[in-house]
Amino acid sequence: MSPVPTLETLFEAGRRIAPHVRRTPVLTSRTFDDRCGGSLFFKCENFQRIGAFKFRGACNAVLSLSEEDAAKGVVTHSSGNHGQALALAAQLRSIRAYIVMPETTSEVKKAAVAGYGAEIIFCEASLESRERCAARIIEEKGATLVHPYNDYRIIAGQGTAALELLDEVPDLDVLLTPVGGGGLLSGTALAAKGLSPRTDVVGAEPEGADDAYRSFQAGEIQPMHAPDTIADGLLTTLGDKTFPIIRDHVREIVTVSDPDIVEAMRLMWERMKIVVEASAAVPLAALLQGALKTEGKRIGIIVSGGNVDLDRLPWRR
Amino acid sequence: MSPVPTLETLFEAGRRIAPHVRRTPVLTSRTFDDRCGGSLFFKCENFQRIGAFKFRGACNAVLSLSEEDAAKGVVTHSSGNHGQALALAAQLRSIRAYIVMPETTSEVKKAAVAGYGAEIIFCEASLESRERCAARIIEEKGATLVHPYNDYRIIAGQGTAALELLDEVPDLDVLLTPVGGGGLLSGTALAAKGLSPRTDVVGAEPEGADDAYRSFQAGEIQPMHAPDTIADGLLTTLGDKTFPIIRDHVREIVTVSDPDIVEAMRLMWERMKIVVEASAAVPLAALLQGALKTEGKRIGIIVSGGNVDLDRLPWRR
Repeated sequence: MSPVPTLETLFEAGRRIAPHVRRTPVLTSRTFDDRCGGSLFFKCENFQRIGAFKFRGACNAVLSLSEEDAAKGVVTHSSGNHGQALALAAQLRSIRAYIVMPETTSEVKKAAVAGYGAEIIFCEASLESRERCAARIIEEKGATLVHPYNDYRIIAGQGTAALELLDEVPDLDVLLTPVGGGGLLSGTALAAKGLSPRTDVVGAEPEGADDAYRSFQAGEIQPMHAPDTIADGLLTTLGDKTFPIIRDHVREIVTVSDPDIVEAMRLMWERMKIVVEASAAVPLAALLQGALKTEGKRIGIIVSGGNVDLDRLPWRR
Repeated sequence: MSPVPTLETLFEAGRRIAPHVRRTPVLTSRTFDDRCGGSLFFKCENFQRIGAFKFRGACNAVLSLSEEDAAKGVVTHSSGNHGQALALAAQLRSIRAYIVMPETTSEVKKAAVAGYGAEIIFCEASLESRERCAARIIEEKGATLVHPYNDYRIIAGQGTAALELLDEVPDLDVLLTPVGGGGLLSGTALAAKGLSPRTDVVGAEPEGADDAYRSFQAGEIQPMHAPDTIADGLLTTLGDKTFPIIRDHVREIVTVSDPDIVEAMRLMWERMKIVVEASAAVPLAALLQGALKTEGKRIGIIVSGGNVDLDRLPWRR
């Protein structure tokens, strides 16, 4: 079993994926600085390949495989950003990717995954069916499961966004990320712990999917029944690899309502001129709602992704 | 009378406005590179203050005024990006700005200009009424007219975006901008002439407002009757200061249809995750339509602005 990633593991991941990932820009905004009374630095992973930070972890996982394992391919059950990320990472290594998704998945997502040359395996919508289908692929093909977040290779890869941000903008007081399954948050926490121990890492979560908040308070993983939020990238729950890192190295989890998320999302489009998905607006929503002290602080935000359906914007009347 | 700006004039403008303008990032896109068979470099002036390159010229014009003239304020008749840009530039120098606009102007635009502390002068919708109102302000207040484009201070200011792009990305084969009144295109042509004479500067214009194309072909300014295009930043016609620069230093003007503009605009949102206005998508639309040879070329594009009404997107069904 591989151990919890260290700073050196993160640096290794960074070097491994460097030829393939985009070094995304850090943007600032006078509007939001004025509203928060601090200095905000937005690490724009919406500009990352496949439109989300997820490519970092998937790329690290795929490139970490031995030649023998790689030859048998990779499998996951995620129709979202991780599915696309794994499909592209596999394509870049010229290996097979099997992406398990319900038949009801939108055509856009199916086309995106198929466009990277991955094989789509249809299952039913339940988690049980997804896991059963993935298990069958592992059994039949010998493919390696790459979990969307509960995997140290994924966690290390996601942490490379924070490495870049802390390299470009040192002396952050706070570093904020959205939290769903905890891959980005735990990777970010490990990066800050190593590079900038005085930076407080904070997770921002939708009220309608607040398992990380409750787990953090309780000191053990709490289940989430029927999560319901516009931030559909954050419906997942913490895993047994992400939770301990978060428990030990994250300062706080804050929650925010869906209307506040949509307002922050729209403001980012209007004022920063960037396309971000609802999940990516959760940290700014928390700041604008006063969930943290921002006055005079230097605050980094990982803008997690920008994959939205332009025909179904949440503020559309 | 001030002479046509030289490269040194542009550098001076760049130094003058540097404390106030944002040095905007240059983004790239594998998707569009693949589609064009070349390398595209997008200078993102949609991230500029007030959301458009217009702030560069307005800032240069305002900061160029003598103390005596500055004390009497500045005036313009533009309810669009130039009006906002002039209002902000005047606010930064703590002088008055009078912005003439029709009462029918959208509340959003009125609020934006008023938010920068400018005084709004309402007129009727005709150009005659606008000019009459502006003339009255000049007469009564001694304010200096700052034309949106037919002004060498404006032209020099707009040219600073290309200076930055050519500094960051040398060896461009082509440099493309949208063309309306020609301020951005003429400033860009002067920048390229000075810094990178081998770069072909090309203007991209909507078919429904093709006066620059026709003027360029005819060798003299041609009028535009009833322009009609989704690219509402490009309805204006060339002026007697912008046209000669364009005639002498621009390689070509290409035109593109409104449906192609909307398609390119949407693609930039979807693939690049940036919010751009229709006018800003005109150069990419021209490339995607094959208006220029792109195979193997290094092509710079000035992305002119990102001010859109998120409730009225042109692809909204």
